[in-house]
Amino acid sequence: MKSDTFHMSMLFDFYGELLTDKQKELFDLYYNEDLSLSEIAEHAEISRQGVRDAIMRAESILRDTEDKVGLVKKYSGYENKLIRIREEASYIAGVNSGLRNYEIAKHVDSIISTVDELLK
Amino acid sequence: MKSDTFHMSMLFDFYGELLTDKQKELFDLYYNEDLSLSEIAEHAEISRQGVRDAIMRAESILRDTEDKVGLVKKYSGYENKLIRIREEASYIAGVNSGLRNYEIAKHVDSIISTVDELLK
Repeated sequence: MKSDTFHMSMLFDFYGELLTDKQKELFDLYYNEDLSLSEIAEHAEISRQGVRDAIMRAESILRDTEDKVGLVKKYSGYENKLIRIREEASYIAGVNSGLRNYEIAKHVDSIISTVDELLK
Repeated sequence: MKSDTFHMSMLFDFYGELLTDKQKELFDLYYNEDLSLSEIAEHAEISRQGVRDAIMRAESILRDTEDKVGLVKKYSGYENKLIRIREEASYIAGVNSGLRNYEIAKHVDSIISTVDELLK
């Protein structure tokens, strides 16, 4: 039954707080800790079917929310792209350390600090 | 009863699809079109109190979702900061048009195109 783990982890990062504490716990053990349904059942002292139902219910809440809200689709690639911008800016800073152009240095610093605000 | 219009519009932009069509319609007329409760009541052919209840219910869904998920807080300032990064990069391109440094030009172009991907 396991769905795409990476996608499920992303949905959980964005919308996990919409789940109950119990759903969060079981979902986390299954998708982030990679325990089997049987292992989780033993740990949580409920039936394997109970674990399965709870996780499927949680998946359905996360998927339905994403279908309506679409924020994972919109923002999930943001962080990597921001890191790329930061790298490009650092590269310009490196080239400019030979040129010593004050205007370039100032604007590169501003790009890096703005990216850092967005990444924090 | 009107809450901060700007904040409510942001919440609506992010989470509006979690509302029913009716809630969306009334909320939009009140917060985006700035109609009064009485005007909306007349338009929708329901009581003023009915309009008020529906909008308060919609507000509560949007606020509760933001309290749990926090994506407006996290992402609402993103666009302005990305535009600022784009401006700084254009400024560097301008300085570099005198210097004609190929490496700087290449990395500035890459920053601008990555920002444009994030803004689209």
